[in-house]
Amino acid sequence: MSASGLASTLQTRTPFSNIKALAFDAYGTLFDVFSVTALCETLFPGNGTALAQLWRAKQLQYSLLRSLMGRYENFWRLTEDGLLYASKSLKLDLTSAKQQQLMNAYLTLTAFPDVKPGLEALKKLGLRLAILSNGEPKMLDAATRSAGIDSLLDATISADELRVFKPSPRVYKLARTRLQVDASRLGFVSSNNWDVNGAASAALTTFWIQRSVGEPAEELGFPAARVVTSLTDLAVALQ
Amino acid sequence: MSASGLASTLQTRTPFSNIKALAFDAYGTLFDVFSVTALCETLFPGNGTALAQLWRAKQLQYSLLRSLMGRYENFWRLTEDGLLYASKSLKLDLTSAKQQQLMNAYLTLTAFPDVKPGLEALKKLGLRLAILSNGEPKMLDAATRSAGIDSLLDATISADELRVFKPSPRVYKLARTRLQVDASRLGFVSSNNWDVNGAASAALTTFWIQRSVGEPAEELGFPAARVVTSLTDLAVALQ
Repeated sequence: MSASGLASTLQTRTPFSNIKALAFDAYGTLFDVFSVTALCETLFPGNGTALAQLWRAKQLQYSLLRSLMGRYENFWRLTEDGLLYASKSLKLDLTSAKQQQLMNAYLTLTAFPDVKPGLEALKKLGLRLAILSNGEPKMLDAATRSAGIDSLLDATISADELRVFKPSPRVYKLARTRLQVDASRLGFVSSNNWDVNGAASAALTTFWIQRSVGEPAEELGFPAARVVTSLTDLAVALQ
Repeated sequence: MSASGLASTLQTRTPFSNIKALAFDAYGTLFDVFSVTALCETLFPGNGTALAQLWRAKQLQYSLLRSLMGRYENFWRLTEDGLLYASKSLKLDLTSAKQQQLMNAYLTLTAFPDVKPGLEALKKLGLRLAILSNGEPKMLDAATRSAGIDSLLDATISADELRVFKPSPRVYKLARTRLQVDASRLGFVSSNNWDVNGAASAALTTFWIQRSVGEPAEELGFPAARVVTSLTDLAVALQ
């Protein structure tokens, strides 16, 4: 092939033209976990942001600790345990009524504004779309229905059946098995940079949705193949 | 045995009289990881506390993430990676000279004031004393020598040889193997409550050094057998 012919071929192919399916992280990527902050503030005036942040941090930490301890409990339980710890740590009086209100809010988290148009644009490119989440299946079903994106998804894959959480390589492998695609044809999309590192370490092609400008990547050795700021930008990158 | 005879027997035996050896967590339990805060503040005025806290949080998080990813790197490397991330996140100009100063500070962390007298009192009770830490062996040797507690320790056991970190049950089991004691005769001591949960889940008798008043226990299902506020109080509890 001549140099100009090669250049032309390279121009018409995106570096990601082999991608046939995309698996999306759910919490923090599709759903805004901090959309509970307003309710936290209503229930505990002056402590809304601190509660929402510590709650999320503990939910994540417990998923790692329990995976490593070999003491799995599902993500709904960990979400509740994180809320209990956070309210104790901040010395808030979490009545069972308030606890139930906050847990229910996790079933109707707001989707980020770019999610629905982004998924629609990616669907039009002929890609198969799935969720690959640590979330417990019922939580994920409720949240996708509430956000009106359930009809755009071909599959919802949960770590729950393996009884271990991301970033265990077993969870990323589950997506390949379920979607019946090679690792080279499966893209993984997350706003959680540790999750991007986990998927890249498990040989998937990774896309980091960097939602906060200037947020550094984690120092874990497996950077994203491409960084974008929204799902709509991702659709442009994969055109 | 008569009722009074039984009562007398119970009085003379502590509930922990079977304990023959104690394994101590190092960072946060013997050594104050926040003793680097002053140097952080000198190098980055106004950001010392934020840097020290994020540095420690990332060091811990990376130990969990890498264990679960199956991508082990030793604790010295993770300490450096945590520092890199924290300084980028806080937009601090970490020159290589400053990086080296801060890393060196990790080799001479201050021991908490109760550590040396506590270890001395426990030693007098005839207990064998060891460190069981995620730390890399050279880091641990430097820190124990610097704190003047090396002669009080019968062994320094590092997760490094297993290439996985606490709270993996394999690490707690390593202490039993090394010290050649049954789980029922081995006590584990930590200020990190997640570490207490991990050791209790691995069938050790656990003692939580609750250094901050009112700090809640983690919601992980494996509480400490006894909560004390210092190593000197632990020696009293084990008399």
